[in-house]
Amino acid sequence: MSGSSGPLGIVGGGQLSVMTAAAAVRLGVEVAVLASRPDDPAVRFLPGTTVGDPTDPATLEAFVRRCGVVTFDHELVDVTLLADLERRGAALRPGPRALAVATDKQAQRLRFAEAGLPLPPHVLTTTAADVRAAADRLGWPVVAKVARGGYDGRGVAVLRDAVDLDAWDPGHALPAVVEPALDIEAELAVQIARRPGGETVVHPVVRTVQVDGMCQSVVVPSGLPDGVEAEAVAIARSVATAVDAVGLLAVELFLVDGRLLVNEIAARPHNTGHHTIESCVTSQFENHVRGVLDLPLGDPSLRVPAAAMANVVGRSRDPLHPGVDPGPGTTVHLYGKPPRPGRKLGHVTAVADDSTTAEARAHRLADLLVGRTSAAPETSEVLV
Amino acid sequence: MSGSSGPLGIVGGGQLSVMTAAAAVRLGVEVAVLASRPDDPAVRFLPGTTVGDPTDPATLEAFVRRCGVVTFDHELVDVTLLADLERRGAALRPGPRALAVATDKQAQRLRFAEAGLPLPPHVLTTTAADVRAAADRLGWPVVAKVARGGYDGRGVAVLRDAVDLDAWDPGHALPAVVEPALDIEAELAVQIARRPGGETVVHPVVRTVQVDGMCQSVVVPSGLPDGVEAEAVAIARSVATAVDAVGLLAVELFLVDGRLLVNEIAARPHNTGHHTIESCVTSQFENHVRGVLDLPLGDPSLRVPAAAMANVVGRSRDPLHPGVDPGPGTTVHLYGKPPRPGRKLGHVTAVADDSTTAEARAHRLADLLVGRTSAAPETSEVLV
Repeated sequence: MSGSSGPLGIVGGGQLSVMTAAAAVRLGVEVAVLASRPDDPAVRFLPGTTVGDPTDPATLEAFVRRCGVVTFDHELVDVTLLADLERRGAALRPGPRALAVATDKQAQRLRFAEAGLPLPPHVLTTTAADVRAAADRLGWPVVAKVARGGYDGRGVAVLRDAVDLDAWDPGHALPAVVEPALDIEAELAVQIARRPGGETVVHPVVRTVQVDGMCQSVVVPSGLPDGVEAEAVAIARSVATAVDAVGLLAVELFLVDGRLLVNEIAARPHNTGHHTIESCVTSQFENHVRGVLDLPLGDPSLRVPAAAMANVVGRSRDPLHPGVDPGPGTTVHLYGKPPRPGRKLGHVTAVADDSTTAEARAHRLADLLVGRTSAAPETSEVLV
Repeated sequence: MSGSSGPLGIVGGGQLSVMTAAAAVRLGVEVAVLASRPDDPAVRFLPGTTVGDPTDPATLEAFVRRCGVVTFDHELVDVTLLADLERRGAALRPGPRALAVATDKQAQRLRFAEAGLPLPPHVLTTTAADVRAAADRLGWPVVAKVARGGYDGRGVAVLRDAVDLDAWDPGHALPAVVEPALDIEAELAVQIARRPGGETVVHPVVRTVQVDGMCQSVVVPSGLPDGVEAEAVAIARSVATAVDAVGLLAVELFLVDGRLLVNEIAARPHNTGHHTIESCVTSQFENHVRGVLDLPLGDPSLRVPAAAMANVVGRSRDPLHPGVDPGPGTTVHLYGKPPRPGRKLGHVTAVADDSTTAEARAHRLADLLVGRTSAAPETSEVLV
């Protein structure tokens, strides 16, 4: 159906698609994008972008036929449809078997349990009655996560009691993963890139800060003991093998009682790896492109002492403030999306000699871009 | 004619345009490009690219009308035409007065002499007889440089004697700058970014290696004494003021007998600043975009101990080898241009703890990409 010639196809036209395309272009690789909506960033910023529903068989097939290798910037895909296209020769990377796991939190838990990976206690549920039974067994409060389609905290609910459960949209509960509310010491993430033959490289382990289920900031180095980092890397390698990942795989982990547990994965470049553009020799986006095109993977190591990433999250529908002074060590990424409260509109990366300074720089600039001036500007002189 | 709204226009569709657009997109800024030829990289890699002759008044005016601010990726512009468009309200950055100097080596020497800047001994010539007279005065051999349209060593000739002069295409000699063949200790370059109001930031001074007039490689830090670097920065600031630069200005300098002399300038991102993408907090491309859009300039400082850039120059019409192992510290940039002997097809940046290692890494990978394997691969272990 598709050959090795033709552009690199990306299903999805969000910021991940635009940043992946930037890495492809640097390698002289043309990109074609299937965006879901006319206001997706790729429509403005990338040539060869068509708008269409990726779950419509004719639309998806027409797109795949134009492309060489096809990859994905989101999980909202129809795995059955992809499996049919792959049978007829489409080069889909990652393939439908990996996506079947990565796009379904229940499938993730089943596969990881099979592979002997450490997981939080959990119950897989299909009805609201199941959730209640699970909570009674695990002990309230519980965290319920819809199996498919959730992101940035959507589809995740903390349920303190049966009243919360009744208030939760029951349609979403079917199916779901239910966990006890864990006492999480730290959340970590690892970006691992993998070629079809199994070669991998692992980007540095990062510590992430989540607010209401949305990644707020990321810092590297993680500041956690070497042993914990080494275990996180080992787990990431096992996960990549277990799901037969190709391209970038992000593995999110909880540290609970000194022990790492696999939370969830994404089989694509991930918000927790955006810092790699500035902080690593090779970014997660380039290693995704290298992985899916079966090119030798790039050096994933840090080239700065420390870095932090903070998301630029909309507070209103007011325009951003791109004209603020970026300050030392920082890089601004804006996605060109219409502002809306709670929407990720961009991110900021800051590099520094230490992670505390990097975090302060990133947060200050992310705040300024949305018109908030909570933090004092960094100065190199102190007036006494 | 053009407003502050509308995309950032770039006249020229080469690799500089593509790399500038990548920086603009990261800031959420849309780009439109006027490419000269249908096989220019921008045609494949950037949306909103039209193909047309930028020296044709109707073509240029139609392009400028579509855009907000307009900038340039090459010197092959008609300054008179630009001045007319500016009079009618076009936002051209840099403006025609700066371009009139930057696009003409004779105008550069006149302006820099006026500003009291240190220059090589030179004679401005308009005929072949002038060149002979100049050489007789300066002493053979001389270097003759055509005033307009030369690049990558084209339009520059070393003339040992009158026989060489007769063999040189006399059309090109008119007009030209003629210099003695200097005993150059080192060639340096400085990238300086400037906003319309005069705010500037200066990227680190680099040492460049030229072969046959084409930049072959760049290394940073330069390894030259602090005093020399400080003088280079001071000269770059004076040049930026003297030409009323807006956006990125590259200043190339000779070190002769311990003294810095201004060789030439480019009023745009420049090959000697490509390393900034990986080595500096803010790249020359982003600071060009920030400068021309009158946004606060980004931190230009190094975020790695050392870096080197090596150009990937075609040896034949054979395809490149993008599948080579990039090795530690390196980043590949390929421009998607058809290979041809002597053509710049891409570049490689390498970062390292020291500049010697960075240079070795960059040269090794640039060689591998064109199918040459002169250098031994870097290994972290030595077998004894």
